[in-house]
Amino acid sequence: MAGATGPLSGMTVLELCHFIAGPYCTRLLADMGATVIKIETPGEGDPIRTWGEKVDGRSLWWSVHARNKKSVTVNVKDPRGRDIVLNLVKRSRIVVENYRPGQIERWGLGPDVMAAANPRCVLVRISGYGQTGPNRDAPAFGVIGEAMGGMRYLTNHPADMTDLPSVRVGFSIGDSIAGMYGAMAALAAVHEQDNAEVPTFRTIDVALTESVLSLLEGCLPEFGKLGMVREPQGSRLATASPSNAYPTKDGAWVLIAANSNPLFARLSALMKQPELAKDPRFLGNHERVQNMDAIDRIIGDWTRAIESAELVRLLAEAQIPATKIFTIEDIAADKQFLARGMIQKVPDPYFKDELLHPGAMPIISGFDRAAAVRWTGPDVGEHTGDVLGELGLSADEIAALKKDGVV
Amino acid sequence: MAGATGPLSGMTVLELCHFIAGPYCTRLLADMGATVIKIETPGEGDPIRTWGEKVDGRSLWWSVHARNKKSVTVNVKDPRGRDIVLNLVKRSRIVVENYRPGQIERWGLGPDVMAAANPRCVLVRISGYGQTGPNRDAPAFGVIGEAMGGMRYLTNHPADMTDLPSVRVGFSIGDSIAGMYGAMAALAAVHEQDNAEVPTFRTIDVALTESVLSLLEGCLPEFGKLGMVREPQGSRLATASPSNAYPTKDGAWVLIAANSNPLFARLSALMKQPELAKDPRFLGNHERVQNMDAIDRIIGDWTRAIESAELVRLLAEAQIPATKIFTIEDIAADKQFLARGMIQKVPDPYFKDELLHPGAMPIISGFDRAAAVRWTGPDVGEHTGDVLGELGLSADEIAALKKDGVV
Repeated sequence: MAGATGPLSGMTVLELCHFIAGPYCTRLLADMGATVIKIETPGEGDPIRTWGEKVDGRSLWWSVHARNKKSVTVNVKDPRGRDIVLNLVKRSRIVVENYRPGQIERWGLGPDVMAAANPRCVLVRISGYGQTGPNRDAPAFGVIGEAMGGMRYLTNHPADMTDLPSVRVGFSIGDSIAGMYGAMAALAAVHEQDNAEVPTFRTIDVALTESVLSLLEGCLPEFGKLGMVREPQGSRLATASPSNAYPTKDGAWVLIAANSNPLFARLSALMKQPELAKDPRFLGNHERVQNMDAIDRIIGDWTRAIESAELVRLLAEAQIPATKIFTIEDIAADKQFLARGMIQKVPDPYFKDELLHPGAMPIISGFDRAAAVRWTGPDVGEHTGDVLGELGLSADEIAALKKDGVV
Repeated sequence: MAGATGPLSGMTVLELCHFIAGPYCTRLLADMGATVIKIETPGEGDPIRTWGEKVDGRSLWWSVHARNKKSVTVNVKDPRGRDIVLNLVKRSRIVVENYRPGQIERWGLGPDVMAAANPRCVLVRISGYGQTGPNRDAPAFGVIGEAMGGMRYLTNHPADMTDLPSVRVGFSIGDSIAGMYGAMAALAAVHEQDNAEVPTFRTIDVALTESVLSLLEGCLPEFGKLGMVREPQGSRLATASPSNAYPTKDGAWVLIAANSNPLFARLSALMKQPELAKDPRFLGNHERVQNMDAIDRIIGDWTRAIESAELVRLLAEAQIPATKIFTIEDIAADKQFLARGMIQKVPDPYFKDELLHPGAMPIISGFDRAAAVRWTGPDVGEHTGDVLGELGLSADEIAALKKDGVV
């Protein structure tokens, strides 16, 4: 396939989405080479266009969030607009939507309609609570879904260490995870269709709450069998020590994971307190876990006198797993990320500048990560004319639809 | 396909993995119907078999983590063992490995060897920092990868609110996200092969650090263009108010997202302080964000006098998005999760009991979520005889290999 930028080159994906989870799903597919057609309402388009930091009113996040996508404006509430979308469904292998459950049905674009138009298609539906159940119609807020999925409770210090509430992971992680599940399952269903004599239209129902809950390791069987409620553990591991964040002279934090006997012996030597490794309180992991506060205090007293860069250098020399807790500034300068093309400099014609973008995920042999970013987040409706032209509409027909506010 | 439990029924996946990220990747594929063959070293097998809470020495997490998988013991360092694995590669569509970069090559099972044996196969390699770059050989710890990917820094209260370090999300989220990227990209490459005249073997290189970094929204372009370093925001949103966690009479926390004018007016009325909605400090979102501390104090004073269950009921009646911050106990009792089969009661023959498992992700039309959990985490080598038998080995040959410690 000439010019293929990823394994999904040649696949068309239709996006009936706004905000984060659905658009993240389609961006993953776009980054792997798919042609993603994003439908936006004529006018201001997706609200994310104005979210986060802006330059001259244009969101920097948008440059990343909508990259590699075509923006086509369609008023789906107009029968002519609905017909255009249905024509695009016929040409799409995957459709992704993240409106409230029932919304696309009200537009006359529910799964039955889509299945009749194109049985060799997969519809991904992403919502806060899923398409069924007593809570399906509740308004979906990412932070609330994360809290119901059990993430928020566990993202905290232990109750005896703070009176503050648990914290939000500082970005929309629940939405992204839901989007990832959507992309993964869509491709599983596509594979099934690729290998079936008669393809079956599949609808995939991703709930943000369930996406989060699915990651909770053994929490459910531990609660069901033992009545055990997992509690937050703050910055350390509950079952291995020392593994914690320690303060440095320059006010940063460094994670140190010296939670094996040889690692702890090396750390003790580095701290010039080799006797600690023979101290009965710290002899093995079991003893160290029992005396976590003491060991963490000793290590913290040592780290507090050292600058973070020097501390990380010393720990690396001693082959003790450690890292500064990276800010985005540390990330942008990191040799490993740079060496692997995870930080791309992308020309953005709207900003008239090169912007930093995260690389496409993941690296796939035979495809160039740098080439995966084909263009940055487009203007509202930038590709309307092109895409409608491909559907066979003439310039006059498109102009008439524009005049009527249909596209 | 009779008895198909998911869209990947009929696909064989080989797992050369231990710990979390790789096995999570294959479990996602297994939950969608794939036949996953997990290779373990004869003896104690995967360390996760002993992690988390246990009953009679058996880990409850294992019941979930290894469900739907076949366990086959093979000593890959023995040439006969290596040949068995290579025979399994020939029958597999996807191979997943998460050893240190270079390890499978040392076993004589690198990508070139696999590609020669089976070009219609995809190799997923999951590691801390990726297969290339100056840091590729560093020991990979999930918590360190999360810190380098930028998650740990942003999971904290603002600097002026606490002297405590940022916290770990209380489960192995970085590993899981890396596993999800592996499953997604593997299926994308499978699709490419399904539609190619001559299939190309693909190697997929997933770094845990990059998996985390990929989720950071606009942080990279915002830093590159404006020098802005995103800072943690604690329990609230930085740009919308009120949206925060508020304490209740019974010591729980309730999230309330009343961050629009109509929602805030409803909340003010519910608090019997309707004048707040007209207060110049709280008139619009902009004003409320400027006066976040004041508004949060007023709401907190109100919630502190009410039990969490009553508070959630009042907020629901007033149609204000809100939730208690769920513990695993709240989750297990939640009507929405139960109605959708997200909490399965699964008979586990080893525990001689029904255990609670999270449902398979996501719901796919035509497949029954309850049927997706076919069996629970197996014993070490439980399927060795069956699988080697399918490879054509006789019972005597298998017995001889067992005697020699090869399987």
